[in-house]
Amino acid sequence: VIGMPRGDKKLGEKKLIQRIRRAAGGGNSVVAGIGDDCAVLRVPPGHEMLVTTDFTIEGVHFRRDWHPPEVVGRRCLTRGLSDIAAMGGEPRAAFLSLAVAGDIPQKWVDRFLEGLLGLAKEFRVPLAGGDTAQSMEGIQADIVVVGSVPKGEAVLRSGANAGEHIYVTGELGGSAAALARLMESKAVRAGDSQHFRPQARVAVGQWLRRRGVVSSMIDLSDGLSTDLAHICEESHVGAEIQAQAIPRARVGKTFVDLDFALHGGDDYELLFTSAAAVPSEVAGVRVTRIGRMTRSSGMRLIGADGRRRRLPASGWEHFR
Amino acid sequence: VIGMPRGDKKLGEKKLIQRIRRAAGGGNSVVAGIGDDCAVLRVPPGHEMLVTTDFTIEGVHFRRDWHPPEVVGRRCLTRGLSDIAAMGGEPRAAFLSLAVAGDIPQKWVDRFLEGLLGLAKEFRVPLAGGDTAQSMEGIQADIVVVGSVPKGEAVLRSGANAGEHIYVTGELGGSAAALARLMESKAVRAGDSQHFRPQARVAVGQWLRRRGVVSSMIDLSDGLSTDLAHICEESHVGAEIQAQAIPRARVGKTFVDLDFALHGGDDYELLFTSAAAVPSEVAGVRVTRIGRMTRSSGMRLIGADGRRRRLPASGWEHFR
Repeated sequence: VIGMPRGDKKLGEKKLIQRIRRAAGGGNSVVAGIGDDCAVLRVPPGHEMLVTTDFTIEGVHFRRDWHPPEVVGRRCLTRGLSDIAAMGGEPRAAFLSLAVAGDIPQKWVDRFLEGLLGLAKEFRVPLAGGDTAQSMEGIQADIVVVGSVPKGEAVLRSGANAGEHIYVTGELGGSAAALARLMESKAVRAGDSQHFRPQARVAVGQWLRRRGVVSSMIDLSDGLSTDLAHICEESHVGAEIQAQAIPRARVGKTFVDLDFALHGGDDYELLFTSAAAVPSEVAGVRVTRIGRMTRSSGMRLIGADGRRRRLPASGWEHFR
Repeated sequence: VIGMPRGDKKLGEKKLIQRIRRAAGGGNSVVAGIGDDCAVLRVPPGHEMLVTTDFTIEGVHFRRDWHPPEVVGRRCLTRGLSDIAAMGGEPRAAFLSLAVAGDIPQKWVDRFLEGLLGLAKEFRVPLAGGDTAQSMEGIQADIVVVGSVPKGEAVLRSGANAGEHIYVTGELGGSAAALARLMESKAVRAGDSQHFRPQARVAVGQWLRRRGVVSSMIDLSDGLSTDLAHICEESHVGAEIQAQAIPRARVGKTFVDLDFALHGGDDYELLFTSAAAVPSEVAGVRVTRIGRMTRSSGMRLIGADGRRRRLPASGWEHFR
C-alpha cells in the first residue's frame, strides 16, 4: 500500500478482511490462516501439492446484470476446484484476492462471498488467505486453490495413449447455450442451466485416480474441442470422437446444439482417457464414452452419417 | 472462458502464456509446471507450506507514468517474496495471474515480465503457473508465492513477549518519500530510491529463524506503525519505540522525514522481535534495534526529548 497519508486505515478493506476471516473457518490442513504474512499449510506425508489460480473478471467472465453475485462467487471457486479435480487431487485450502471498485454495493460483495464460502463449506475447503484491494473499475477476483495428491499420482494431460477410450462426465454445452440465450436477451431461469450451478467433479477425479483407470485428464473450461486438443498436444497423439455419443446438456427442456457441446466452454466437467471400461456412473455422476485416442495426430469428428471430418479446436471468446 | 464463438483461440493470451512458459524454467520443487490444470509441487519432508497472494493494480499500486514496467514486475514479485521472508521461509514457486486491457502495448507486458522473471531468477524461484485474461481497463496482476518452512518453525506475528527487543532491517520511509516526490511532480532517479529496487529480505528471515532468535516477524508493507500494531494485536502486548533509533532511508542524499519512516508503506524490510541481542548486520543487511515490547497495550513513541507520546497506527492510502 503506497501513497498519501490518511487518518482512517482503509476501513472498507479492513471490514472485508474481518468478514472473510470470521466466515473462513479452519480446516485440518491449515496450521495458520488469515491474519499473518502467509498461510501455513500442512501437507500429508507422501503427498505432493497442487496449485491452481484463476481470474474471474467483471465484463469478461461475468456480467452483473446477468449473474447473481452468489453465482459469481460460486463459479469463481468452482474454477479452482475443477482444476484440482482434473489432477485427481483433494482440495485443501483456497485463497481469494478480491479487487472491488468504490461504486460496487457492499451488498453485492457480501452475496458474492456468501456464494463462494457456501461452496467452500460444501467441499470442506477453508479460505486460508488472500488479498483485498480497491480496483479502478468493476470487480476482479483471483482464486487460488491448493490441493494434494499422493506422490507421483497426479493425473496429467500428457498420459494419453493411442487406442484408449475418451470419456466425459455429465452433459456438455449447457453453460455456453445459457450464455447465448442471455446475449439474445432471453431469460434463463437459474434452475434451467448448470451455468448457474456448476459442479466441480472432485469426487469423480479422485475415484478415477484411486482405481488407476485414468491415463490423462483435463477439466472442460475452454470447451471440448479445445481441451481435447490440449490432451492430444501434451500426449503426442490424435483423437476421434463420435458426434452422436456426446452427452448434450439441456436448457430448460431443450437439448443444446452440437456446436455448444463441442466448443462451448465453462462446463467444468472432466474429460479423460482410459484403457479400461469405466462404469457409466461414477460418484453419482454420469460418465460417457465419446471416442478414442489415435496414433495419427489431429482430431476428427465422426458424424451421424459415419463420415469423418477434421475437428478444429474452436474455443469461445469472452463475451465482450 | 465463456461467450461468443470465434475463429482464433485468444491469440494474445496464448502468446503470453507461451512467452511465460519459455522464460519460466524449472526448479527442483516443481514436478509439473505451466501446461497442466495445476502445478505439482514437491514439499521437502518435515516441512510445511507457506502461501501468500498479493495484488498489483494499475492506478492503485503503480502508475504507468511513474513506474517503468520492469520495476512494476519486480515490485509485484517482491511483495510475495517478502511475505515468505517474514515467516522465515524459503520461496519455492511463484504463480502470476495477469489481466491486461487490449490497449496496453505488448512491449509494456514484455518489460513487466522481464523485471518479474529476472527477480525470480535471482531468488531461484520458478514461475510455475498462473492465469492470463483480458481486463476491461488497465493492468491487474496477482502474484502467488509458495514457500516452505520446517514443521512448526514458521515465524508468526503472534509470538512477541513483553520485554523483548524490536528490530528492523535496512532503512525505512524511502518508498513513501519517493512517491511523495513523484506526486509533487518532482523527478526521482531510479538509483536514488529503493522504491524502484525493493529487496525481499529472504536470507535475513531464514537466518533469524535458523538461529532461533526471533519470536515474531512481519514485513513492512503497510508502514512501521501499522505493521507494529499488527504484531501488538496478534501477540497481545504493547510496544515502545525510540524516534531517534529508527533508521531513515535517503532519497538522493537527503534523509527522509520521520513521518515517512514511521508511517510510509512499501519498504519490504522486516520488523521482528527478539529476546536476544541480534547482530547489527545479518546476511549483509543492516539490523537496528528501535525499541521494546511492553506489557501495557498500545504503542508509544519516545521522542528526542525523552517524552513518550501515543503512536497511532497510521497507514498510507493508495495514491488515487
